[in-house]
Amino acid sequence: MSRTEIATLGEFGLIDHLTRDIQLKQSTSVKGIGDDAAIVNNQHKRTLVTTDLLLEGIHFDLIYVPLKHLGYKAAVVNFSDIYAMNGRPQQITVSLGISKRFSVEDLEAFYEGIKLACEIYGVDIVGGDTTSSLTGFTISITCIGIADKEKIVCRNGARDTDLIYVSGDLGASYMGLQLLEREKNAFDGSGDFQPDFSGKEYLLERQLKPEARKDIVQALGENGIVPTAMIDISDGLSSDLLHICKQSNVGCQIFEERLPVDYQTAMMAETFNMNVTMVALNGGEDYELLFTVPLHLHDQMADIGGVRLIGHISKPETGCYLVTRDGQEMLLRAQGWDPIAGE
Amino acid sequence: MSRTEIATLGEFGLIDHLTRDIQLKQSTSVKGIGDDAAIVNNQHKRTLVTTDLLLEGIHFDLIYVPLKHLGYKAAVVNFSDIYAMNGRPQQITVSLGISKRFSVEDLEAFYEGIKLACEIYGVDIVGGDTTSSLTGFTISITCIGIADKEKIVCRNGARDTDLIYVSGDLGASYMGLQLLEREKNAFDGSGDFQPDFSGKEYLLERQLKPEARKDIVQALGENGIVPTAMIDISDGLSSDLLHICKQSNVGCQIFEERLPVDYQTAMMAETFNMNVTMVALNGGEDYELLFTVPLHLHDQMADIGGVRLIGHISKPETGCYLVTRDGQEMLLRAQGWDPIAGE
Repeated sequence: MSRTEIATLGEFGLIDHLTRDIQLKQSTSVKGIGDDAAIVNNQHKRTLVTTDLLLEGIHFDLIYVPLKHLGYKAAVVNFSDIYAMNGRPQQITVSLGISKRFSVEDLEAFYEGIKLACEIYGVDIVGGDTTSSLTGFTISITCIGIADKEKIVCRNGARDTDLIYVSGDLGASYMGLQLLEREKNAFDGSGDFQPDFSGKEYLLERQLKPEARKDIVQALGENGIVPTAMIDISDGLSSDLLHICKQSNVGCQIFEERLPVDYQTAMMAETFNMNVTMVALNGGEDYELLFTVPLHLHDQMADIGGVRLIGHISKPETGCYLVTRDGQEMLLRAQGWDPIAGE
Repeated sequence: MSRTEIATLGEFGLIDHLTRDIQLKQSTSVKGIGDDAAIVNNQHKRTLVTTDLLLEGIHFDLIYVPLKHLGYKAAVVNFSDIYAMNGRPQQITVSLGISKRFSVEDLEAFYEGIKLACEIYGVDIVGGDTTSSLTGFTISITCIGIADKEKIVCRNGARDTDLIYVSGDLGASYMGLQLLEREKNAFDGSGDFQPDFSGKEYLLERQLKPEARKDIVQALGENGIVPTAMIDISDGLSSDLLHICKQSNVGCQIFEERLPVDYQTAMMAETFNMNVTMVALNGGEDYELLFTVPLHLHDQMADIGGVRLIGHISKPETGCYLVTRDGQEMLLRAQGWDPIAGE
């Protein structure tokens, strides 16, 4: 593959090069890249704003993450935050700190991933900032979304007896990460090592190319269901459910036997000698939606595909518990991925 | 000073600690920190979005930049971008990548600077992301602003015969940076060195604690003047004026004798044996407003304090020139601070 040094384009040249084919498609995008600020028109709607900072060595390892996938994931995790408010992502800004070792082709691959995600989810790239970095690759993405005022769902609306649902399945992304780390370590030790990922594609996809649950938000909307509280699972089911409980001032009970786990996740947990329930509770980076709905909507929820009832909200004094298969109660803890405490 | 290790608080604890006293004051801020996204209500207005990524070693040097000043500046440079659209900044999100060597007190100082800037400019902190960094301090700030649809000023509206104005004075921030770099190098060579900044306070202030020109935007508004094009000077007058000319498809003539330069800037340029006009043209980080208004508003512009007429827009085929004191025409070049090409 050819390698074009970034210095041959300069800052403005690079931005032009990477963004020249970007078109605005959303009716809410008035003006995009190329001025001091982008212009957005969200009349009669609320504007949602979320932002994520991703740092090399902390959030991703370029040894096993292809740049196109990284771009895709960096965009999607922001969309996920907007869906978690029951909103629709509309625009993103992309700021990059890039190190010398990157070529123009590297950044093209990264932008390809971002553009693909934006195309699939119907989001416009409206701005950003590109600068050199003395150290690792730095990605900061801000996403702007819209929502009807009365349909926004925060974390603080869960009430006693509400039902707790989760979309998709849990723990696969974490097992994908373990798998990649293992292969990386094996590779470090031997030059002719060939990683074998067959039968584990789902785990890798969940880690490297996660999707945001636009489909769930759409299905809820079409069925006239507005959750009482919602969050996307980035730190792990346990940690994120505790966010809802704390902010709603409620307790909860969830059931081990109801936690959705894929076959590949369970198999890989066994290979790694890990407790699969712990993986599902604390793995993180699932980007599934965790939400609560009033009890009386139970029957209506049957029309929503791809979600599972995992428990219910209780009074605050009862605490937050997992009920195990053998009927024991285990206190939920925020053991989610915490990049600061884990340093 | 006491030093509290960040690990004692953890990620969520740290965010809580730094943001617990943050209140929302803007009527457009519906919900701030603590959910998947912030909620903004900009009904009947356009929403403006701008973002800046600041990296240690590229954009700032913690050897001579106090963290409180850095926080202040990081916020203000974003406000400046919103003013440059003739808008009003309303909210910011603050994402930080922090290295181990930082204490909680360090981050408190940084946040103090951000909060002070927000208080002075009437802006709410509504969200962000805090993570550890394996390397330097990383700051990503996104600012949301509002503007009336018909009063937004972009870079592409300048027309032949328009007058070119600039606020404040130019080059002082760049000379402040040169001064700090010189003292740092001197300090590196000798243990008992005492920097002498007396008589140069203005240069340091312009570099370390710049202000955004809210006052100019207000004065223009009160006088019913909407510029045809506007930009804030971050890369240098020359580079930023060329942005306006390129996007408006026009040429320009500006006059050396009209460039506003402070006495301290001129003195320091002489000390450093630099051409003061080059400093004014290419210094950068002035955060002054550069804008164009139709010729017929010339008399009305006399009511706007703190701005100076420096030239006029011309047809595209005449090119972009500086007319020197001795009447020669010098082609304007984008020699502004370019962190990528300059690597």
